[in-house]
Amino acid sequence: MRGFGMRKINDVGWIEKEKPVAGPLDAIIKPTIIAPCSSDTHTAHGGSGPKVDRILGHEAVGIVDSVGELVTRFAPGDYVVVPCVTPDWLAPGVQNSRTFSHDAKPFGSFKLMGQKDGTMAEFFHVNHADANLSPLPAGVSPEAALMTVDMMSTGFHGVELAEVQYGETVVVIGIGPIGLMAIAGAALKGAGRIIAVGTRPKAIEVAREYGATEIISYKDGPVDKQIIELTHGGADKTIIAGGNGETYTAAVRATHANGIISNVNYFDCADQLNLAALDWGLGMADKDIRGSFCPGGATRINQLLALIKYGRIDPTQIISHRFHGFDKLPEAFELMDKKAPDLIKPVVYFD
Amino acid sequence: MRGFGMRKINDVGWIEKEKPVAGPLDAIIKPTIIAPCSSDTHTAHGGSGPKVDRILGHEAVGIVDSVGELVTRFAPGDYVVVPCVTPDWLAPGVQNSRTFSHDAKPFGSFKLMGQKDGTMAEFFHVNHADANLSPLPAGVSPEAALMTVDMMSTGFHGVELAEVQYGETVVVIGIGPIGLMAIAGAALKGAGRIIAVGTRPKAIEVAREYGATEIISYKDGPVDKQIIELTHGGADKTIIAGGNGETYTAAVRATHANGIISNVNYFDCADQLNLAALDWGLGMADKDIRGSFCPGGATRINQLLALIKYGRIDPTQIISHRFHGFDKLPEAFELMDKKAPDLIKPVVYFD
Amino acid sequence: MRGFGMRKINDVGWIEKEKPVAGPLDAIIKPTIIAPCSSDTHTAHGGSGPKVDRILGHEAVGIVDSVGELVTRFAPGDYVVVPCVTPDWLAPGVQNSRTFSHDAKPFGSFKLMGQKDGTMAEFFHVNHADANLSPLPAGVSPEAALMTVDMMSTGFHGVELAEVQYGETVVVIGIGPIGLMAIAGAALKGAGRIIAVGTRPKAIEVAREYGATEIISYKDGPVDKQIIELTHGGADKTIIAGGNGETYTAAVRATHANGIISNVNYFDCADQLNLAALDWGLGMADKDIRGSFCPGGATRINQLLALIKYGRIDPTQIISHRFHGFDKLPEAFELMDKKAPDLIKPVVYFD
Amino acid sequence: MRGFGMRKINDVGWIEKEKPVAGPLDAIIKPTIIAPCSSDTHTAHGGSGPKVDRILGHEAVGIVDSVGELVTRFAPGDYVVVPCVTPDWLAPGVQNSRTFSHDAKPFGSFKLMGQKDGTMAEFFHVNHADANLSPLPAGVSPEAALMTVDMMSTGFHGVELAEVQYGETVVVIGIGPIGLMAIAGAALKGAGRIIAVGTRPKAIEVAREYGATEIISYKDGPVDKQIIELTHGGADKTIIAGGNGETYTAAVRATHANGIISNVNYFDCADQLNLAALDWGLGMADKDIRGSFCPGGATRINQLLALIKYGRIDPTQIISHRFHGFDKLPEAFELMDKKAPDLIKPVVYFD
Repeated sequence: MRGFGMRKINDVGWIEKEKPVAGPLDAIIKPTIIAPCSSDTHTAHGGSGPKVDRILGHEAVGIVDSVGELVTRFAPGDYVVVPCVTPDWLAPGVQNSRTFSHDAKPFGSFKLMGQKDGTMAEFFHVNHADANLSPLPAGVSPEAALMTVDMMSTGFHGVELAEVQYGETVVVIGIGPIGLMAIAGAALKGAGRIIAVGTRPKAIEVAREYGATEIISYKDGPVDKQIIELTHGGADKTIIAGGNGETYTAAVRATHANGIISNVNYFDCADQLNLAALDWGLGMADKDIRGSFCPGGATRINQLLALIKYGRIDPTQIISHRFHGFDKLPEAFELMDKKAPDLIKPVVYFD
Repeated sequence: MRGFGMRKINDVGWIEKEKPVAGPLDAIIKPTIIAPCSSDTHTAHGGSGPKVDRILGHEAVGIVDSVGELVTRFAPGDYVVVPCVTPDWLAPGVQNSRTFSHDAKPFGSFKLMGQKDGTMAEFFHVNHADANLSPLPAGVSPEAALMTVDMMSTGFHGVELAEVQYGETVVVIGIGPIGLMAIAGAALKGAGRIIAVGTRPKAIEVAREYGATEIISYKDGPVDKQIIELTHGGADKTIIAGGNGETYTAAVRATHANGIISNVNYFDCADQLNLAALDWGLGMADKDIRGSFCPGGATRINQLLALIKYGRIDPTQIISHRFHGFDKLPEAFELMDKKAPDLIKPVVYFD
Repeated sequence: MRGFGMRKINDVGWIEKEKPVAGPLDAIIKPTIIAPCSSDTHTAHGGSGPKVDRILGHEAVGIVDSVGELVTRFAPGDYVVVPCVTPDWLAPGVQNSRTFSHDAKPFGSFKLMGQKDGTMAEFFHVNHADANLSPLPAGVSPEAALMTVDMMSTGFHGVELAEVQYGETVVVIGIGPIGLMAIAGAALKGAGRIIAVGTRPKAIEVAREYGATEIISYKDGPVDKQIIELTHGGADKTIIAGGNGETYTAAVRATHANGIISNVNYFDCADQLNLAALDWGLGMADKDIRGSFCPGGATRINQLLALIKYGRIDPTQIISHRFHGFDKLPEAFELMDKKAPDLIKPVVYFD
Repeated sequence: MRGFGMRKINDVGWIEKEKPVAGPLDAIIKPTIIAPCSSDTHTAHGGSGPKVDRILGHEAVGIVDSVGELVTRFAPGDYVVVPCVTPDWLAPGVQNSRTFSHDAKPFGSFKLMGQKDGTMAEFFHVNHADANLSPLPAGVSPEAALMTVDMMSTGFHGVELAEVQYGETVVVIGIGPIGLMAIAGAALKGAGRIIAVGTRPKAIEVAREYGATEIISYKDGPVDKQIIELTHGGADKTIIAGGNGETYTAAVRATHANGIISNVNYFDCADQLNLAALDWGLGMADKDIRGSFCPGGATRINQLLALIKYGRIDPTQIISHRFHGFDKLPEAFELMDKKAPDLIKPVVYFD
């Protein structure tokens, strides 16, 4: 079986592997459409530690190729959507994990992202298929469905963490695909004013379509100062959807007392999250700081698919590039890696 | 001063009263636009007990006529929006009332609705003005602002009580103005499928514009059975925005285990809320039943006004009739009382 | 294999069955101590529909006899505590069930209680063992651990549903073992005044030890009137831990505006939950009504066991009768069935 | 009128002032018992900026001397308990402040602590008396009541922020009076294991009485490492009740994925809250960080007083020194300032 991945740090390309085999509770999926993610390129450059001969990718929609003998809800030929977080539901850790992300160990549910071969292959493996696969609903296109498995789920989770209330002023820092989904999710959760922070023209256009009322740029001075000035004191809620340690500091500053800072950005190991006590109200200002990743499992994806099915959102506005053919994986990956100015999110159709 | 109200049960008309005077913390408002509410007509027919020589109305936008000497945030001439629930913020009860509705006693904050003369007059009185008045923001029309003070706040609170999550199936029973606002509020809170229950053609049209995906009617059989069939087992959340004891029973039945039934309907004293234990899962089904009214105070209204200002919603779609002139109060009231087929919500401009 | 159960309605006794076999994810447990529950006797009398040749019982602590080939966390010989609610964690329903009670269908997780043979046998079957079994911790006696699996978990869940805050006045209706655990749980959750409703002298004594500050009796007049008088207007929170439809009505009445009524009583199919709208504040009083059963799975039980281990509670005060020997099952069951005046909770040691 | 305070930074002593006068909504209180707080000594040394000729103190119980003409619930001669946080309830900010701490501006409700003369005087001023004073209940001693106004309210709020669930492992860093109250509050909220961090023998003794199961010391190595080792991976919840920026870092590290870090420590302007991204799970670990102060207003205090009245807690165990006589204020203040080894909390009876 052929797959695209990293042979070693900074060396990506085709990798030949054995076709995976489904354990009793698992499924093997033949992807029909996948999307590279910036965390894939980050990984390829050594982002989360050395990995050798590993197929990349954690976003996919596809067709069930085979299932283990204990799988009861899916059968070969089913068209399915695969969440990027696939918990081991039998590990007691999921029972008190708010997002089901931490199963047998912290981050244990991030299996496709760090623990095994990913989705950029002819076939890939999904654990606990009955609980982790969603049927592709009638009326939802595969590429729209593909946007739910990480981009929409993660961006929307930023909004959920921020507990956005009707009419609140929400800042979204970063207008990559996750940030754009956070903007759409904030509008869909009842935000009033939505201030987005970003610079890329194509993304700014989509940000406005999804509901951003203002766009500000790092180029016009410190972001926190701009926000505090615009809002006369700070935002109700700030969602971090990109950046580094400085973004974190700016986010806490830009949020007023009694607000929430919600992070869905994957910081780098090298980042430092530093804060003057005064910026956090000396610890007394009721500024909550939260950080999470998208919730795992099928039910989450089913609910996001319902939003598409019932016309509440069209997440395909973030798809800036469409490739056709399995052989286009390297080209799509390179596009993601180099971050062309008009790039938001590429997808690769395998057929 | 002239006002429109009930002289006694079933006898409405003009009433002459002394112009109200502001206590130290209060304000006197000269309304520029008001809206009759079905609870006003209900009251006039004896709905919540006998009242004599009482000016009706609890929805208004207007201009500050005078303020008490301790009022610091408002001055004569300010254009203000007045919530229909105006708590006494110095009564300790508000400190642990989720909606600030229950101040010195249960429902104590419903002052305009039951404890003094209302808004259908040349002038009316507002307690604790600094905490209960909102400035009319630039970019929001008085009639749009008027919709926030009860209709939008109450309908949206039904959604808040129901804790609507992304992609959930929400039923709204009743498509009067509150129900329509609950539909709009559910769409703005991330609901997927929204099933509305109602029959009036004009309201059905607005329901669809606000986001209802299906409309069902009492005329086609028991509502709960229709919902259970459509949803293969029941809705995630059901909002009651009209009806009687039977509506309540149907709502609990129509909601599946783990769901929430959220009531914002003002039941009549004569209603019985009866339920077979089996319909409530024998008390074990995690079907929460909640009932509330719109939250009190200025901050709530400010946040709803922000939704209008930033273009998230246009609540004026529920305004079906506009009257111009103080003298049109009787006509508007009668329209509300008789519930013409094309009536949703009337407003009366005083100038 | 021998077990004790119902041959048909109103006919209990020994039943001979094949020893159960563990599927790949399951375990077979050899109980060392079990407890009859009033719901077992209720079932035997036809309470939740006809059952034939069914071994009763859903509370047990015991030793793992065998496990399926996919079980990784437990092995034969392990001493384990078994929650009475054992979800199928691979059914997507658990992913949005607040208590994990509703897996593939409503109440699907109540397997020992309604879907298969129970714990009053030489061996019994537990599904999804890795997620549903808890190791018996050092320092916790088997009989104390046995109290966690239903009594403590259910009583404490009544407190959780009621969202008891520091210093609140909590009413607990019913002082059977669940009610007593609700009293202890309310005290452990920070309740101030705790008013218990009951009459049995032995239970009253334990209620006081667990933290009840006052005991009132049905015999002294309507319970709701007594509570309203004692509390000058109603309780903050009321937990229903026994009774019938009338108890429900009294509980809603006895709770003031902005309160919560939390039900952990298993109502009978024949019960009617009737309420005058006025008693529910005409639907506007912010009186939440909730009803649930104890949460399922191992993590819940682990946390309750920690409370015992660290000396926060001794749940064995509710054990009024101890039997020794498997052959004492009929006697213990009969005691439960006849509800002797000094009965709270019996246990049966199998060795 | 005589009071004790700071003439300028590092210069404390007696100050002569005019007796304060009650505005229309206010009250003047004649304290009968007060307690110095470490934040008073911190202020005297310039902690929160220069202050000149300012009477210190924010904890008091006393007798109403006079009230403004709009005060309706209190009269001269009433024995009252005064929360250290006294919001202006007419400022709209309180309406969406979770703790009512941020009224017209952030921290606006901390009036006695920073905006006017404090409680260490013959008389002091309380704003919005109807909403901010609690009657001293029968059965609660003045010194026990005094402990509610800051120590108990703040320590317990740390537990509330941490959303402690039954059986969880809670770490409390710092065993000064706030930390000790956090320990007691955690036990009262259902914590299982409670690990306290501190070294002073007298405080360790009280910590154990209030429910700490283990005490660890900074002297035995990095606190976070000790906690991670003891708990095999980190605490469920960590409450910071003392320390500096390093304490913050240690707290985040010591809490496992899905946990909550709850701060009730008043950091110094000079503190830096620094964190390696890895210690926060790269922003994805669901480790919430919260920081707040005790909620304002009378209702909060009433509920804490109920805990004392009904025997749930005796907060006077933290009182290590009792002074009698107004003239003992300097001595009590010096004791607090020098932090004698056996000091926990001093109180000064004025008569």
